[in-house]
Amino acid sequence: MKRRKEMKSLIIVSHPSIETSLNQQFFKEATRRLDVTWHHLEKCYPDGEIALEKEIELLKTHDRIIFQFPFYWYSAPAHLKIWQDAVLIYATECLRKKELGIVLTTGVSEKEYQAGGKEEYTISEFLRPYQRIAHKFDMTFLPPFVMAQFMYQTEEKKWERLIAYQRYLTLTGKPTLVNRIDWFLEQLRNHPLLQASNQLKQEYVIDYLCKEKEALEDLMFTLQELKE
Amino acid sequence: MKRRKEMKSLIIVSHPSIETSLNQQFFKEATRRLDVTWHHLEKCYPDGEIALEKEIELLKTHDRIIFQFPFYWYSAPAHLKIWQDAVLIYATECLRKKELGIVLTTGVSEKEYQAGGKEEYTISEFLRPYQRIAHKFDMTFLPPFVMAQFMYQTEEKKWERLIAYQRYLTLTGKPTLVNRIDWFLEQLRNHPLLQASNQLKQEYVIDYLCKEKEALEDLMFTLQELKE
Repeated sequence: MKRRKEMKSLIIVSHPSIETSLNQQFFKEATRRLDVTWHHLEKCYPDGEIALEKEIELLKTHDRIIFQFPFYWYSAPAHLKIWQDAVLIYATECLRKKELGIVLTTGVSEKEYQAGGKEEYTISEFLRPYQRIAHKFDMTFLPPFVMAQFMYQTEEKKWERLIAYQRYLTLTGKPTLVNRIDWFLEQLRNHPLLQASNQLKQEYVIDYLCKEKEALEDLMFTLQELKE
Repeated sequence: MKRRKEMKSLIIVSHPSIETSLNQQFFKEATRRLDVTWHHLEKCYPDGEIALEKEIELLKTHDRIIFQFPFYWYSAPAHLKIWQDAVLIYATECLRKKELGIVLTTGVSEKEYQAGGKEEYTISEFLRPYQRIAHKFDMTFLPPFVMAQFMYQTEEKKWERLIAYQRYLTLTGKPTLVNRIDWFLEQLRNHPLLQASNQLKQEYVIDYLCKEKEALEDLMFTLQELKE
């Protein structure tokens, strides 16, 4: 299989009290071994004075731009808006054909974001301004990654979401089943903790997934031939 | 006819370069003889440090809260978001049962805000976060007042929109035809310029409108009787 083009994510985080957010700490920990850039606006610019040249350079050197924030009154905290108002007007050329993703955390259950739910409107409706920004810059808008009520999740669910988050940041191409399995195999092969311990279990998982993937590819190939 | 309850508007303006905006200057001029409060955030808080107690007092002493701003990336400029993040969490009690209005200016024609238009989504969709805030505080969300492409309007159209803006700020009750005529009569009676000059013309307009209104009220009364 041919190697995909390198793709690097810039995570623009906006959270005014990040040290109190277990969810954001969990996210940050999840990025430690990934080749991504964690860029926390409130820490970087406590007085709100944005360094325009630095920001443009960051946008130029990354391919997937992520806005990561908790819902504050149904949009990002003020610091991200300060950044948008300061930077975006100069970013037309360096964003074209790239990807824009949203990592959204909310204390309210996701099912409340619908007609008749407590929050009335869908998350997609609240995120229209960001979706429109992506389209204006000729970017691909990725389906948002929503982490609702992190604290109420079981440990297992938290880890599952963490892996999904890592995939959201680093998976190249569409999140098809084949691509997702490929991505997962790569993580397993490269993860230092998994390499050091539990070697047999890891090999078993990889072997299992490889077989699954082959079966799936055969199936897809057959279906393709039937269509032609 | 019974006198309606006094209603006072607080216009929370967010515009980072208001002195260059002819539209905002026009709006400001239009409020001069009205009993409303003009509150420009960037002027009041250039460093973004919001005086919470002052803001709560302002909200307490007004009944119609207006957010007035140009679209910056499909929402308000950062200063209004700073205000929202600082104030709203403490405003639950002083906003209940009041009204929230949006005065939006845009350089793009209103018809571009639709599926297939240049801006893709409707203004209502972009304003969902504000609509939801109103509902969360048990406020009535007023249909937004949109001033698109102010500079391209004819003089006559500008004045027409100016009167509509004044009405948006000060009309009590629903904008029915009767209420709008009532409001207009009150403006005519109280306007110092009209009082000083052109007395006859003013009296003629008032007389004409009063008769129109009586005819309309008769008609409504008759229709009401027929229904019963």
